[in-house]
Amino acid sequence: MYSLRVYYEDTDAGGVVYNANYLRFFERARTEFLRDLGVDIKDWIERGVSFVVSEASLKFHRAARYGDQLSISTAPSEITAAAFLLTHNVHREKELIVSGSTKMVCVGPGLKPRRIPEAIVHSLGSYR
Amino acid sequence: MYSLRVYYEDTDAGGVVYNANYLRFFERARTEFLRDLGVDIKDWIERGVSFVVSEASLKFHRAARYGDQLSISTAPSEITAAAFLLTHNVHREKELIVSGSTKMVCVGPGLKPRRIPEAIVHSLGSYR
Amino acid sequence: MYSLRVYYEDTDAGGVVYNANYLRFFERARTEFLRDLGVDIKDWIERGVSFVVSEASLKFHRAARYGDQLSISTAPSEITAAAFLLTHNVHREKELIVSGSTKMVCVGPGLKPRRIPEAIVHSLGSYR
Amino acid sequence: MYSLRVYYEDTDAGGVVYNANYLRFFERARTEFLRDLGVDIKDWIERGVSFVVSEASLKFHRAARYGDQLSISTAPSEITAAAFLLTHNVHREKELIVSGSTKMVCVGPGLKPRRIPEAIVHSLGSYR
Repeated sequence: MYSLRVYYEDTDAGGVVYNANYLRFFERARTEFLRDLGVDIKDWIERGVSFVVSEASLKFHRAARYGDQLSISTAPSEITAAAFLLTHNVHREKELIVSGSTKMVCVGPGLKPRRIPEAIVHSLGSYR
Repeated sequence: MYSLRVYYEDTDAGGVVYNANYLRFFERARTEFLRDLGVDIKDWIERGVSFVVSEASLKFHRAARYGDQLSISTAPSEITAAAFLLTHNVHREKELIVSGSTKMVCVGPGLKPRRIPEAIVHSLGSYR
Repeated sequence: MYSLRVYYEDTDAGGVVYNANYLRFFERARTEFLRDLGVDIKDWIERGVSFVVSEASLKFHRAARYGDQLSISTAPSEITAAAFLLTHNVHREKELIVSGSTKMVCVGPGLKPRRIPEAIVHSLGSYR
Repeated sequence: MYSLRVYYEDTDAGGVVYNANYLRFFERARTEFLRDLGVDIKDWIERGVSFVVSEASLKFHRAARYGDQLSISTAPSEITAAAFLLTHNVHREKELIVSGSTKMVCVGPGLKPRRIPEAIVHSLGSYR
Protein backbone atom coordinates (compact mmCIF):
# COMPACT_ATOMS: atom_id res chain seq x y z
CA MET A 1 0.00 0.00 0.00
CA TYR A 2 1.49 3.29 -1.13
CA SER A 3 0.63 6.43 0.85
CA LEU A 4 0.95 10.09 -0.04
CA ARG A 5 -0.23 13.47 1.10
CA VAL A 6 -1.90 15.80 -1.43
CA TYR A 7 0.10 19.01 -1.97
CA TYR A 8 -0.80 22.13 -3.95
CA GLU A 9 1.18 20.71 -6.89
CA ASP A 10 -1.44 17.95 -7.17
CA THR A 11 -4.54 20.15 -7.08
CA ASP A 12 -6.30 22.50 -9.49
CA ALA A 13 -8.43 25.63 -9.27
CA GLY A 14 -11.51 23.45 -8.77
CA GLY A 15 -10.03 22.75 -5.34
CA VAL A 16 -9.50 19.05 -6.06
CA VAL A 17 -6.72 16.73 -7.23
CA TYR A 18 -6.31 17.25 -11.00
CA ASN A 19 -7.35 14.16 -12.96
CA ALA A 20 -4.03 13.55 -14.76
CA ASN A 21 -2.18 13.42 -11.47
CA TYR A 22 -3.72 10.08 -10.55
CA LEU A 23 -1.64 8.53 -13.35
CA ARG A 24 1.44 10.02 -11.65
CA PHE A 25 0.25 8.48 -8.36
CA PHE A 26 -0.25 5.13 -10.13
CA GLU A 27 3.37 5.24 -11.32
CA ARG A 28 4.64 5.86 -7.79
CA ALA A 29 2.45 3.08 -6.42
CA ARG A 30 3.49 0.51 -9.04
CA THR A 31 7.19 1.36 -8.70
CA GLU A 32 7.09 0.74 -4.96
CA PHE A 33 4.81 -2.28 -5.38
CA LEU A 34 7.31 -3.87 -7.77
CA ARG A 35 10.24 -2.98 -5.51
CA ASP A 36 8.47 -4.72 -2.63
CA LEU A 37 8.23 -7.82 -4.85
CA GLY A 38 11.97 -7.56 -5.55
CA VAL A 39 11.69 -5.95 -9.01
CA ASP A 40 13.81 -2.81 -9.27
CA ILE A 41 12.80 -1.06 -12.50
CA LYS A 42 16.03 0.94 -12.58
CA ASP A 43 18.17 -2.21 -12.47
CA TRP A 44 16.17 -3.75 -15.31
CA ILE A 45 16.49 -0.61 -17.44
CA GLU A 46 20.27 -0.95 -17.15
CA ARG A 47 19.87 -4.47 -18.55
CA GLY A 48 17.79 -3.17 -21.46
CA VAL A 49 14.38 -4.20 -20.15
CA SER A 50 11.65 -1.71 -19.36
CA PHE A 51 7.89 -1.44 -19.09
CA VAL A 52 5.63 1.03 -20.85
CA VAL A 53 1.99 1.82 -20.20
CA SER A 54 -0.05 0.67 -23.23
CA GLU A 55 -3.53 1.31 -21.80
CA ALA A 56 -4.92 3.15 -18.81
CA SER A 57 -8.39 3.68 -17.42
CA LEU A 58 -9.67 5.72 -14.49
CA LYS A 59 -12.98 6.17 -12.69
CA PHE A 60 -13.27 9.21 -10.45
CA HIS A 61 -15.66 8.41 -7.59
CA ARG A 62 -15.01 11.26 -5.16
CA ALA A 63 -12.81 14.35 -5.14
CA ALA A 64 -9.60 14.39 -3.10
CA ARG A 65 -8.47 17.73 -1.71
CA TYR A 66 -5.40 19.59 -0.50
CA GLY A 67 -3.89 17.97 2.58
CA ASP A 68 -5.72 14.66 2.16
CA GLN A 69 -3.80 11.52 3.02
CA LEU A 70 -4.36 8.96 0.24
CA SER A 71 -3.45 5.29 0.05
CA ILE A 72 -3.08 3.45 -3.24
CA SER A 73 -3.36 -0.31 -3.64
CA THR A 74 -1.83 -2.19 -6.56
CA ALA A 75 -2.71 -5.70 -7.73
CA PRO A 76 -1.41 -7.55 -10.81
CA SER A 77 -3.56 -9.72 -13.05
CA GLU A 78 -3.76 -11.03 -16.63
CA ILE A 79 -0.05 -11.82 -16.74
CA THR A 80 0.85 -12.89 -20.29
CA ALA A 81 4.18 -13.47 -22.03
CA ALA A 82 4.79 -9.79 -22.69
CA ALA A 83 2.29 -7.83 -20.59
CA PHE A 84 0.34 -7.60 -17.35
CA LEU A 85 -2.42 -5.50 -15.89
CA LEU A 86 -2.17 -3.52 -12.65
CA THR A 87 -5.39 -2.56 -10.87
CA HIS A 88 -5.27 0.42 -8.51
CA ASN A 89 -7.66 1.75 -5.90
CA VAL A 90 -7.10 5.11 -4.27
CA HIS A 91 -8.66 5.50 -0.83
CA ARG A 92 -8.94 8.29 1.71
CA GLU A 93 -9.43 6.23 4.84
CA LYS A 94 -12.46 4.03 3.95
CA GLU A 95 -13.69 6.13 1.01
CA LEU A 96 -12.90 5.03 -2.53
CA ILE A 97 -11.64 8.10 -4.42
CA VAL A 98 -10.41 6.70 -7.74
CA SER A 99 -10.18 3.22 -9.25
CA GLY A 100 -8.22 2.42 -12.35
CA SER A 101 -5.82 0.20 -14.16
CA THR A 102 -2.75 0.34 -16.33
CA LYS A 103 -1.63 -2.29 -18.80
CA MET A 104 2.13 -2.66 -18.73
CA VAL A 105 4.01 -3.98 -21.75
CA CYS A 106 7.57 -5.26 -21.53
CA VAL A 107 9.90 -3.68 -24.08
CA GLY A 108 13.52 -3.95 -25.05
CA PRO A 109 15.77 -1.53 -26.96
CA GLY A 110 13.84 0.72 -29.35
CA LEU A 111 10.64 0.12 -27.35
CA LYS A 112 10.20 -3.28 -29.11
CA PRO A 113 7.84 -5.62 -27.18
CA ARG A 114 9.60 -8.64 -25.71
CA ARG A 115 8.95 -11.48 -23.25
CA ILE A 116 8.87 -10.53 -19.61
CA PRO A 117 12.03 -11.92 -17.97
CA GLU A 118 11.31 -15.10 -16.00
CA ALA A 119 12.48 -13.52 -12.73
CA ILE A 120 9.87 -10.79 -13.02
CA VAL A 121 7.08 -13.25 -13.89
CA HIS A 122 8.09 -15.19 -10.83
CA SER A 123 8.03 -12.08 -8.63
CA LEU A 124 4.62 -11.03 -9.93
CA GLY A 125 3.37 -14.55 -9.24
CA SER A 126 4.53 -14.27 -5.62
CA TYR A 127 1.95 -11.54 -4.99
CA ARG A 128 -1.04 -12.57 -2.92
CA MET B 1 -8.21 20.36 -34.12
CA TYR B 2 -5.86 21.39 -31.33
CA SER B 3 -2.13 21.47 -32.07
CA LEU B 4 0.85 21.53 -29.75
CA ARG B 5 4.58 21.02 -29.80
CA VAL B 6 6.14 18.56 -27.34
CA TYR B 7 8.52 20.29 -24.91
CA TYR B 8 10.86 18.78 -22.30
CA GLU B 9 8.15 19.42 -19.69
CA ASP B 10 6.01 16.79 -21.45
CA THR B 11 8.61 14.06 -21.74
CA ASP B 12 10.26 11.57 -19.38
CA ALA B 13 13.59 9.80 -19.08
CA GLY B 14 12.35 7.10 -21.46
CA GLY B 15 12.65 9.80 -24.13
CA VAL B 16 8.89 9.88 -24.79
CA VAL B 17 5.84 11.87 -23.73
CA TYR B 18 4.93 10.80 -20.19
CA ASN B 19 1.59 8.95 -20.11
CA ALA B 20 -0.22 11.27 -17.65
CA ASN B 21 0.47 14.27 -19.84
CA TYR B 22 -1.98 13.11 -22.49
CA LEU B 23 -4.77 13.85 -20.01
CA ARG B 24 -3.39 17.39 -19.77
CA PHE B 25 -3.41 17.55 -23.59
CA PHE B 26 -7.03 16.29 -23.59
CA GLU B 27 -8.00 19.15 -21.25
CA ARG B 28 -6.41 21.72 -23.56
CA ALA B 29 -8.11 20.16 -26.59
CA ARG B 30 -11.58 20.00 -25.03
CA THR B 31 -11.35 23.56 -23.68
CA GLU B 32 -10.58 24.92 -27.14
CA PHE B 33 -13.09 22.56 -28.77
CA LEU B 34 -15.87 23.86 -26.50
CA ARG B 35 -14.78 27.48 -27.04
CA ASP B 36 -15.04 26.93 -30.78
CA LEU B 37 -18.63 25.74 -30.21
CA GLY B 38 -19.30 28.90 -28.20
CA VAL B 39 -19.00 27.33 -24.73
CA ASP B 40 -16.59 29.27 -22.51
CA ILE B 41 -15.95 27.13 -19.43
CA LYS B 42 -14.74 30.14 -17.44
CA ASP B 43 -17.97 32.04 -18.04
CA TRP B 44 -20.01 29.04 -16.93
CA ILE B 45 -17.95 28.58 -13.76
CA GLU B 46 -18.85 32.16 -12.81
CA ARG B 47 -22.50 31.12 -13.17
CA GLY B 48 -21.95 28.10 -10.91
CA VAL B 49 -21.81 25.45 -13.63
CA SER B 50 -18.74 23.36 -14.27
CA PHE B 51 -17.71 20.01 -15.70
CA VAL B 52 -15.64 17.33 -14.03
CA VAL B 53 -14.01 14.26 -15.55
CA SER B 54 -15.77 11.16 -14.14
CA GLU B 55 -14.04 8.56 -16.33
CA ALA B 56 -11.03 8.52 -18.62
CA SER B 57 -9.42 5.90 -20.81
CA LEU B 58 -6.29 5.94 -22.94
CA LYS B 59 -4.63 3.64 -25.45
CA PHE B 60 -1.00 4.34 -26.27
CA HIS B 61 -0.28 3.26 -29.83
CA ARG B 62 3.06 4.91 -30.56
CA ALA B 63 5.50 7.03 -28.58
CA ALA B 64 5.68 10.78 -29.18
CA ARG B 65 9.02 12.49 -28.64
CA TYR B 66 10.59 15.84 -27.84
CA GLY B 67 9.92 18.38 -30.56
CA ASP B 68 7.06 16.44 -32.17
CA GLN B 69 4.11 18.43 -33.46
CA LEU B 70 0.90 16.73 -32.32
CA SER B 71 -2.71 17.38 -33.28
CA ILE B 72 -5.62 16.36 -31.08
CA SER B 73 -9.16 15.82 -32.33
CA THR B 74 -12.19 16.01 -30.05
CA ALA B 75 -15.67 14.62 -30.77
CA PRO B 76 -18.69 14.54 -28.43
CA SER B 77 -21.08 11.61 -28.14
CA GLU B 78 -23.50 9.97 -25.67
CA ILE B 79 -24.96 13.30 -24.59
CA THR B 80 -27.35 12.69 -21.69
CA ALA B 81 -29.11 15.05 -19.27
CA ALA B 82 -26.06 15.47 -17.05
CA ALA B 83 -23.06 14.06 -18.92
CA PHE B 84 -21.36 13.57 -22.25
CA LEU B 85 -18.41 11.69 -23.65
CA LEU B 86 -15.49 13.24 -25.52
CA THR B 87 -13.39 11.05 -27.78
CA HIS B 88 -9.85 12.17 -28.57
CA ASN B 89 -7.27 11.06 -31.10
CA VAL B 90 -3.71 12.32 -30.95
CA HIS B 91 -1.87 12.24 -34.27
CA ARG B 92 1.65 13.08 -35.43
CA GLU B 93 0.93 13.79 -39.07
CA LYS B 94 -0.84 10.60 -40.24
CA GLU B 95 0.28 8.39 -37.36
CA LEU B 96 -2.11 7.68 -34.51
CA ILE B 97 -0.21 8.18 -31.25
CA VAL B 98 -2.87 7.96 -28.56
CA SER B 99 -6.64 7.46 -28.56
CA GLY B 100 -8.83 8.02 -25.55
CA SER B 101 -11.95 9.44 -24.05
CA THR B 102 -13.14 11.39 -21.06
CA LYS B 103 -16.65 11.37 -19.64
CA MET B 104 -17.65 14.84 -18.51
CA VAL B 105 -20.28 15.31 -15.82
CA CYS B 106 -22.02 18.63 -15.28
CA VAL B 107 -21.88 19.81 -11.67
CA GLY B 108 -23.14 22.75 -9.67
CA PRO B 109 -22.00 24.14 -6.30
CA GLY B 110 -20.44 21.50 -4.05
CA LEU B 111 -19.69 19.33 -7.11
CA LYS B 112 -23.34 18.11 -7.12
CA PRO B 113 -24.38 16.65 -10.51
CA ARG B 114 -26.95 18.75 -12.34
CA ARG B 115 -28.60 19.03 -15.77
CA ILE B 116 -26.42 20.41 -18.52
CA PRO B 117 -27.70 23.93 -19.37
CA GLU B 118 -29.80 23.94 -22.53
CA ALA B 119 -27.42 26.36 -24.28
CA ILE B 120 -24.51 23.92 -23.87
CA VAL B 121 -26.57 20.93 -25.07
CA HIS B 122 -27.47 23.01 -28.09
CA SER B 123 -23.83 23.92 -28.76
CA LEU B 124 -22.68 20.29 -28.43
CA GLY B 125 -25.44 19.31 -30.85
CA SER B 126 -24.15 21.80 -33.39
CA TYR B 127 -20.93 19.77 -33.75
CA ARG B 128 -20.58 17.81 -36.95
CA MET C 1 14.83 16.26 6.14
CA TYR C 2 12.38 15.31 3.42
CA SER C 3 13.20 12.28 1.25
CA LEU C 4 11.83 11.19 -2.10
CA ARG C 5 12.59 8.80 -4.92
CA VAL C 6 12.76 10.14 -8.48
CA TYR C 7 10.06 8.62 -10.73
CA TYR C 8 9.53 8.97 -14.47
CA GLU C 9 6.99 11.71 -13.75
CA ASP C 10 9.87 13.87 -12.45
CA THR C 11 12.26 13.38 -15.35
CA ASP C 12 12.52 14.63 -18.91
CA ALA C 13 13.89 13.37 -22.22
CA GLY C 14 17.34 14.65 -21.25
CA GLY C 15 17.34 11.77 -18.77
CA VAL C 16 17.38 14.07 -15.74
CA VAL C 17 14.93 15.64 -13.29
CA TYR C 18 13.12 18.47 -15.10
CA ASN C 19 14.03 21.87 -13.64
CA ALA C 20 10.50 23.00 -12.68
CA ASN C 21 9.98 19.88 -10.59
CA TYR C 22 12.43 21.05 -7.95
CA LEU C 23 9.88 23.75 -7.03
CA ARG C 24 7.35 20.94 -6.52
CA PHE C 25 9.91 19.16 -4.32
CA PHE C 26 10.44 22.40 -2.38
CA GLU C 27 6.70 22.59 -1.68
CA ARG C 28 6.65 19.02 -0.36
CA ALA C 29 9.71 19.70 1.80
CA ARG C 30 8.38 22.96 3.30
CA THR C 31 4.95 21.47 3.99
CA GLU C 32 6.48 18.62 5.98
CA PHE C 33 9.05 20.94 7.57
CA LEU C 34 6.27 23.23 8.84
CA ARG C 35 4.20 20.25 10.02
CA ASP C 36 7.19 19.04 12.02
CA LEU C 37 7.27 22.49 13.68
CA GLY C 38 3.56 22.16 14.47
CA VAL C 39 2.29 24.37 11.63
CA ASP C 40 -0.41 22.60 9.60
CA ILE C 41 -1.00 24.69 6.47
CA LYS C 42 -4.41 23.09 5.87
CA ASP C 43 -5.65 24.08 9.34
CA TRP C 44 -4.50 27.67 8.79
CA ILE C 45 -6.18 27.88 5.38
CA GLU C 46 -9.48 26.99 7.09
CA ARG C 47 -8.85 29.98 9.39
CA GLY C 48 -8.24 32.25 6.39
CA VAL C 49 -4.45 32.37 6.59
CA SER C 50 -2.22 31.05 3.87
CA PHE C 51 1.26 31.49 2.42
CA VAL C 52 2.18 32.24 -1.16
CA VAL C 53 5.58 32.08 -2.84
CA SER C 54 6.61 35.64 -3.79
CA GLU C 55 10.16 34.84 -4.98
CA ALA C 56 12.09 31.70 -5.82
CA SER C 57 15.63 30.99 -6.92
CA LEU C 58 17.40 27.80 -7.90
CA LYS C 59 20.94 26.73 -8.73
CA PHE C 60 21.36 23.42 -10.50
CA HIS C 61 24.71 21.89 -9.52
CA ARG C 62 24.36 18.30 -10.71
CA ALA C 63 21.71 16.30 -12.55
CA ALA C 64 19.48 13.88 -10.65
CA ARG C 65 18.22 10.84 -12.51
CA TYR C 66 15.46 8.25 -12.55
CA GLY C 67 15.50 6.12 -9.41
CA ASP C 68 17.73 8.48 -7.42
CA GLN C 69 16.93 8.89 -3.74
CA LEU C 70 17.03 12.61 -2.88
CA SER C 71 16.89 14.38 0.47
CA ILE C 72 15.80 17.98 0.83
CA SER C 73 16.69 20.22 3.76
CA THR C 74 14.67 23.30 4.70
CA ALA C 75 15.82 26.18 6.90
CA PRO C 76 13.94 29.42 7.68
CA SER C 77 15.58 32.85 7.88
CA GLU C 78 14.78 36.55 7.46
CA ILE C 79 11.52 36.26 9.38
CA THR C 80 9.68 39.61 9.18
CA ALA C 81 6.15 40.66 10.13
CA ALA C 82 4.60 39.27 6.96
CA ALA C 83 7.19 37.07 5.27
CA PHE C 84 10.04 34.62 5.69
CA LEU C 85 12.65 32.93 3.55
CA LEU C 86 13.14 29.17 3.27
CA THR C 87 16.49 27.87 2.05
CA HIS C 88 16.58 24.39 0.52
CA ASN C 89 19.39 22.02 -0.39
CA VAL C 90 18.74 18.88 -2.39
CA HIS C 91 21.30 16.12 -1.88
CA ARG C 92 21.87 12.65 -3.33
CA GLU C 93 23.84 11.15 -0.48
CA LYS C 94 26.75 13.61 -0.05
CA GLU C 95 26.41 15.31 -3.43
CA LEU C 96 24.67 18.67 -3.65
CA ILE C 97 22.22 18.52 -6.56
CA VAL C 98 20.23 21.76 -6.28
CA SER C 99 20.22 24.68 -3.87
CA GLY C 100 17.51 27.28 -3.75
CA SER C 101 15.16 29.40 -1.76
CA THR C 102 11.55 30.52 -1.68
CA LYS C 103 10.23 33.68 -0.04
CA MET C 104 6.88 32.99 1.60
CA VAL C 105 4.42 35.81 2.17
CA CYS C 106 1.51 35.49 4.59
CA VAL C 107 -1.84 36.38 3.01
CA GLY C 108 -5.45 36.56 4.12
CA PRO C 109 -8.67 36.51 2.08
CA GLY C 110 -8.23 37.86 -1.45
CA LEU C 111 -4.48 37.14 -1.26
CA LYS C 112 -3.97 40.38 0.76
CA PRO C 113 -0.66 40.39 2.69
CA ARG C 114 -1.12 40.23 6.47
CA ARG C 115 0.94 39.71 9.63
CA ILE C 116 2.10 36.17 10.26
CA PRO C 117 0.07 34.79 13.20
CA GLU C 118 2.07 34.82 16.43
CA ALA C 119 1.82 31.05 16.83
CA ILE C 120 3.55 30.50 13.46
CA VAL C 121 6.30 33.05 14.23
CA HIS C 122 6.86 31.19 17.48
CA SER C 123 7.04 27.82 15.69
CA LEU C 124 9.48 29.13 13.08
CA GLY C 125 11.61 30.53 15.92
CA SER C 126 11.75 27.08 17.53
CA TYR C 127 13.76 25.77 14.56
CA ARG C 128 17.41 25.16 15.23
CA MET D 1 6.13 36.93 -27.71
CA TYR D 2 4.74 33.57 -26.63
CA SER D 3 1.05 33.37 -25.70
CA LEU D 4 -0.88 30.76 -23.78
CA ARG D 5 -4.19 30.26 -22.07
CA VAL D 6 -4.23 29.03 -18.45
CA TYR D 7 -5.92 25.64 -18.09
CA TYR D 8 -6.82 23.67 -14.95
CA GLU D 9 -3.57 21.73 -15.37
CA ASP D 10 -1.68 24.95 -14.62
CA THR D 11 -3.60 25.99 -11.50
CA ASP D 12 -3.74 24.87 -7.88
CA ALA D 13 -6.32 24.77 -5.09
CA GLY D 14 -5.42 28.36 -4.20
CA GLY D 15 -7.20 29.24 -7.46
CA VAL D 16 -4.02 30.56 -9.10
CA VAL D 17 -1.28 29.32 -11.42
CA TYR D 18 1.02 27.05 -9.40
CA ASN D 19 4.48 28.58 -8.98
CA ALA D 20 6.50 25.75 -10.58
CA ASN D 21 4.46 26.00 -13.77
CA TYR D 22 6.02 29.32 -14.71
CA LEU D 23 9.28 27.44 -15.31
CA ARG D 24 7.34 25.21 -17.74
CA PHE D 25 6.01 28.37 -19.41
CA PHE D 26 9.58 29.74 -19.60
CA GLU D 27 10.68 26.58 -21.43
CA ARG D 28 7.89 26.95 -23.98
CA ALA D 29 8.69 30.63 -24.46
CA ARG D 30 12.44 30.10 -24.91
CA THR D 31 11.97 27.19 -27.30
CA GLU D 32 9.76 29.27 -29.58
CA PHE D 33 11.98 32.34 -29.12
CA LEU D 34 15.02 30.37 -30.25
CA ARG D 35 13.10 28.83 -33.15
CA ASP D 36 12.13 32.32 -34.29
CA LEU D 37 15.86 33.17 -34.30
CA GLY D 38 16.53 30.07 -36.40
CA VAL D 39 17.80 27.84 -33.57
CA ASP D 40 15.95 24.50 -33.48
CA ILE D 41 16.87 22.81 -30.20
CA LYS D 42 15.82 19.41 -31.51
CA ASP D 43 18.18 19.66 -34.50
CA TRP D 44 21.07 20.62 -32.23
CA ILE D 45 20.39 17.74 -29.85
CA GLU D 46 20.79 15.37 -32.81
CA ARG D 47 24.23 16.94 -33.35
CA GLY D 48 25.15 16.39 -29.70
CA VAL D 49 24.63 19.96 -28.50
CA SER D 50 22.05 20.88 -25.90
CA PHE D 51 21.30 23.51 -23.29
CA VAL D 52 20.57 22.97 -19.63
CA VAL D 53 19.20 25.42 -17.09
CA SER D 54 21.92 26.11 -14.50
CA GLU D 55 20.14 28.87 -12.57
CA ALA D 56 16.61 30.21 -12.42
CA SER D 57 14.92 33.00 -10.53
CA LEU D 58 11.31 34.13 -10.34
CA LYS D 59 9.39 37.02 -8.80
CA PHE D 60 5.65 36.59 -8.48
CA HIS D 61 3.98 40.01 -8.74
CA ARG D 62 0.32 39.09 -9.26
CA ALA D 63 -1.66 35.87 -9.42
CA ALA D 64 -2.81 34.50 -12.77
CA ARG D 65 -6.03 32.51 -12.82
CA TYR D 66 -7.90 29.86 -14.79
CA GLY D 67 -8.77 31.06 -18.29
CA ASP D 68 -6.31 33.97 -18.27
CA GLN D 69 -4.50 34.72 -21.50
CA LEU D 70 -0.79 35.25 -20.73
CA SER D 71 2.03 36.52 -22.92
CA ILE D 72 5.67 35.77 -22.19
CA SER D 73 8.57 37.83 -23.47
CA THR D 74 12.10 36.45 -23.77
CA ALA D 75 15.32 38.46 -24.09
CA PRO D 76 18.90 37.16 -24.13
CA SER D 77 21.81 38.85 -22.36
CA GLU D 78 25.22 38.08 -20.83
CA ILE D 79 26.23 35.86 -23.73
CA THR D 80 29.55 34.20 -22.88
CA ALA D 81 31.51 31.37 -24.51
CA ALA D 82 29.42 28.64 -22.90
CA ALA D 83 26.32 30.28 -21.43
CA PHE D 84 23.69 32.98 -21.75
CA LEU D 85 20.92 34.47 -19.69
CA LEU D 86 17.28 34.67 -20.76
CA THR D 87 15.04 37.21 -19.06
CA HIS D 88 11.29 36.58 -19.11
CA ASN D 89 8.28 38.74 -18.28
CA VAL D 90 4.81 37.24 -18.06
CA HIS D 91 1.99 39.69 -18.69
CA ARG D 92 -1.80 39.52 -18.64
CA GLU D 93 -2.57 42.41 -20.96
CA LYS D 94 -0.68 45.32 -19.35
CA GLU D 95 -0.25 43.74 -15.91
CA LEU D 96 3.09 42.18 -15.00
CA ILE D 97 2.37 38.77 -13.45
CA VAL D 98 5.81 37.17 -13.10
CA SER D 99 9.34 38.21 -14.00
CA GLY D 100 12.27 35.86 -14.02
CA SER D 101 15.36 34.55 -15.69
CA THR D 102 17.07 31.32 -16.57
CA LYS D 103 20.78 30.84 -17.18
CA MET D 104 21.35 28.41 -20.03
CA VAL D 105 24.60 26.45 -20.26
CA CYS D 106 25.69 24.73 -23.45
CA VAL D 107 26.56 21.07 -22.95
CA GLY D 108 27.79 18.21 -25.09
CA PRO D 109 27.66 14.44 -24.51
CA GLY D 110 27.54 13.50 -20.83
CA LEU D 111 26.25 16.99 -19.96
CA LYS D 112 29.84 18.36 -20.20
CA PRO D 113 29.91 22.16 -20.68
CA ARG D 114 31.19 23.24 -24.09
CA ARG D 115 31.42 26.35 -26.28
CA ILE D 116 28.18 27.54 -27.81
CA PRO D 117 28.32 26.81 -31.57
CA GLU D 118 29.11 29.92 -33.60
CA ALA D 119 25.82 29.71 -35.50
CA ILE D 120 23.84 29.95 -32.26
CA VAL D 121 25.92 32.86 -30.93
CA HIS D 122 25.26 34.59 -34.23
CA SER D 123 21.50 33.94 -33.99
CA LEU D 124 21.35 35.19 -30.40
CA GLY D 125 23.24 38.30 -31.50
CA SER D 126 20.61 38.96 -34.17
CA TYR D 127 17.98 39.59 -31.49
CA ARG D 128 16.99 43.20 -31.00
